[in-house]
Amino acid sequence: MNLPIDAIKTHLTDGFDQSVKRLSDLLRIPSIGTDPDYNTQTVEAANWLVQQLADLGFDADLKATAGQPAVVAHHPGPGGEGPRILYYGHYDVQPAEPLDLWTTPPFEPVIVDGPRGKRIVARGAVDNKGQSMMFIEAFRAWKNVYGTLPVAVTVFLEGEEESGSPSLDGFLRAHKHELQADICVVSDTNMWDIDTPALGIMLRGLLYLEVTLQGPSQDLHSGLYGGAVPNPLNILGKILGDLHDEHGRVQIPGFYDDLVDLGDLDQVWQNLAFDEAAFLQNAGLSQSIGEAGYSTLQRIWSRPTCDINGIIGGYTGAGAKTVIPEKAMAKLSCRLVPGQNAANIKDGFRTFLEARLPAGCRYELDELGAAPALMVSTDSPYLKAAETALRDVFDRAPILVGMGGSIPAVGAIREHLGIESILMGFGLDDDRVHAPDEKFELRCFQNGMLSHAVLLAKLAGADA
Amino acid sequence: MNLPIDAIKTHLTDGFDQSVKRLSDLLRIPSIGTDPDYNTQTVEAANWLVQQLADLGFDADLKATAGQPAVVAHHPGPGGEGPRILYYGHYDVQPAEPLDLWTTPPFEPVIVDGPRGKRIVARGAVDNKGQSMMFIEAFRAWKNVYGTLPVAVTVFLEGEEESGSPSLDGFLRAHKHELQADICVVSDTNMWDIDTPALGIMLRGLLYLEVTLQGPSQDLHSGLYGGAVPNPLNILGKILGDLHDEHGRVQIPGFYDDLVDLGDLDQVWQNLAFDEAAFLQNAGLSQSIGEAGYSTLQRIWSRPTCDINGIIGGYTGAGAKTVIPEKAMAKLSCRLVPGQNAANIKDGFRTFLEARLPAGCRYELDELGAAPALMVSTDSPYLKAAETALRDVFDRAPILVGMGGSIPAVGAIREHLGIESILMGFGLDDDRVHAPDEKFELRCFQNGMLSHAVLLAKLAGADA
Repeated sequence: MNLPIDAIKTHLTDGFDQSVKRLSDLLRIPSIGTDPDYNTQTVEAANWLVQQLADLGFDADLKATAGQPAVVAHHPGPGGEGPRILYYGHYDVQPAEPLDLWTTPPFEPVIVDGPRGKRIVARGAVDNKGQSMMFIEAFRAWKNVYGTLPVAVTVFLEGEEESGSPSLDGFLRAHKHELQADICVVSDTNMWDIDTPALGIMLRGLLYLEVTLQGPSQDLHSGLYGGAVPNPLNILGKILGDLHDEHGRVQIPGFYDDLVDLGDLDQVWQNLAFDEAAFLQNAGLSQSIGEAGYSTLQRIWSRPTCDINGIIGGYTGAGAKTVIPEKAMAKLSCRLVPGQNAANIKDGFRTFLEARLPAGCRYELDELGAAPALMVSTDSPYLKAAETALRDVFDRAPILVGMGGSIPAVGAIREHLGIESILMGFGLDDDRVHAPDEKFELRCFQNGMLSHAVLLAKLAGADA
Repeated sequence: MNLPIDAIKTHLTDGFDQSVKRLSDLLRIPSIGTDPDYNTQTVEAANWLVQQLADLGFDADLKATAGQPAVVAHHPGPGGEGPRILYYGHYDVQPAEPLDLWTTPPFEPVIVDGPRGKRIVARGAVDNKGQSMMFIEAFRAWKNVYGTLPVAVTVFLEGEEESGSPSLDGFLRAHKHELQADICVVSDTNMWDIDTPALGIMLRGLLYLEVTLQGPSQDLHSGLYGGAVPNPLNILGKILGDLHDEHGRVQIPGFYDDLVDLGDLDQVWQNLAFDEAAFLQNAGLSQSIGEAGYSTLQRIWSRPTCDINGIIGGYTGAGAKTVIPEKAMAKLSCRLVPGQNAANIKDGFRTFLEARLPAGCRYELDELGAAPALMVSTDSPYLKAAETALRDVFDRAPILVGMGGSIPAVGAIREHLGIESILMGFGLDDDRVHAPDEKFELRCFQNGMLSHAVLLAKLAGADA
């Protein structure tokens, strides 16, 4: 299909107030999926979405999972050849507490004026009801103007994202065939700024380890034994203290061996204008530190890290206790980048640890999580389609961004369905996600709908 | 005075059963000073001792403190020139729990046969009623045989040793003049073995520090910030990991600068036969580690150390949390040896810490305790007197030993009264101090009495 897009855009613009009204209807349903007291409302939101999609010609259904149900809906598109696009989102929201910090009730959406125009304020305004409604409104525009969607679409909206998606892996495995598609589109990320769209193309992976050292068989008095026995805290300090060299490079053997060359991206991210001061201010800091030779954006997007996440051992109450503890424990995690293999890094850490372990000190090493980095190939025709769509709407090229942390659904979809995700989101950094007075700029909502509408047309012509 | 000692020895030997009986009378009083329910019995034990000392011609009194009362008693000795000797001990005992692990009731002393002869079993048998009764019985022998003591004596027995001596400093300050003496004698330590006496001549001191690092102003997500901000746990690991070099030497600047040359002792302790296997077995270990070039005894007696006593920071519960914590805290302590100054070491640690602190990371450093090492000069005439007395009774020279930890009373007496202590104790390592079936070998009790009786004569002739 190759139908003019202008009519779609006009339809969306003319009907914008109705789109906002529908989003408001959804926001009024307190689908706090994390709280069993709200199970009825959570299912109500899911059913509302099933009805919306059914009205647009989808074969829509509410599917049971081990936890909150999933909305799954299929549209055949115009028929004939062409890819199938999977849209992922979630209809559950975070609890609204602390309620007294909200200016207006969290489940009574209001439109208020802000410095960048009107915005809608409610729990879920952006995360993720607003972002999900953007593509649903884009589907509606296509249906209303041309009677069908330009491409085959499957929608999958989960109800447990804010609970850590405990049923996601099982559901994807069980519905692997039904959810099969060529590419996934996710709207759960942010723009570069309100005028500049962004596409997420790299997500760092994770290796999370817990190490416990055991020295003596019981706590010892440091006067009687100090100086002559292995102190697990001293040894843990030595191991952890050696993790980075003076240039901030991780010293685990082989850590950097298999890193993929990022090509142009490396230079782009090195030089990308970035409001580092604002980034640091959010953390109460005035200076960035990290691996020498890299910009802050590179350090958080494309460089692997090793951070200690927790340590405990010995006496930690008030005052002094002269103890040599029998045990000490640390949790640490590496953010992984493309090319790094979690199993190899874990082996490397074991070698690193054992090289620093004196006689008489034993250890246990547990893996508490491992996921590889994810990267969308910059040659992907779907990514190109998204770039073109965004350029069309915003009249400027999107910034290709990395993301320091993982998005579990993207990893799970990659693992179980074998497909990549286009991360095209329209949030802003100041949207107060998970916090009181969560908001979504109406300008972002409108541009998001338009971008999704154009993307549908572009995807119709794309093929891997 | 220069009176024959043999008559005293004979008197003590002939009257040994009576000495044991008096010790048993004292052991029957459950003076559990740590437990307010036993306050009546605690005071009863103190009064029993006041009466014993009064019967021996002492001007004896029970003095109030902020807590349990103190026994203070003075004997003028024979008059004329000569030193005054302060005897320190304590009449309070540890609680007896767990009671079901005692073979016989803890406050019903019994004489039982052991592999090394008869022993008396009861709470306080050795710690410290048995050891205190040794010098009281020696006083009695002198009184009975010669009508007086050969030297001026002050006795100070506290009732809060097992509670950490909370009133000791205040009491010593308030009674500084009354307790003034030339040397203090303490019987609260062990022999080398049942045939070989020991004199403690060195006690390591202590510097206890707590350091808190603050990086970001709140906990951060390691995905969003990891790699670009100071992680207080990473930095703490670096600081603590650098504390020792590969030879086990402490790297705090100036740490070893002012160490006193121990002369012959160094060689003696290097070569002293020591049952290291048994020492390690108590700690569940099979191998000693520590500063290169030193024996285990040197490492715990005469070498300074730095041990981390506690660390806490970040997430320490079950499972994984990808947090960069805002704060991390460590407690660490240095055992100090003669020549080291706690204030200088603390300054050195501050320098060491600041050299490893990246921009944007703040710290707090608190001192939770500081006490210098204590050493009895090997030239001290009082130490010579004790050596001579022990050689006389045991027919072999005592071993001059170090002690890895401090004895608070010895430090307090040094600080407030300005005098050294002779540490002449007759316990054995297997006496089960603070544990069920605490015992004291009667052979040790008898040799201890004889040694104290001879020591009184030798001290009469000693003068600094």
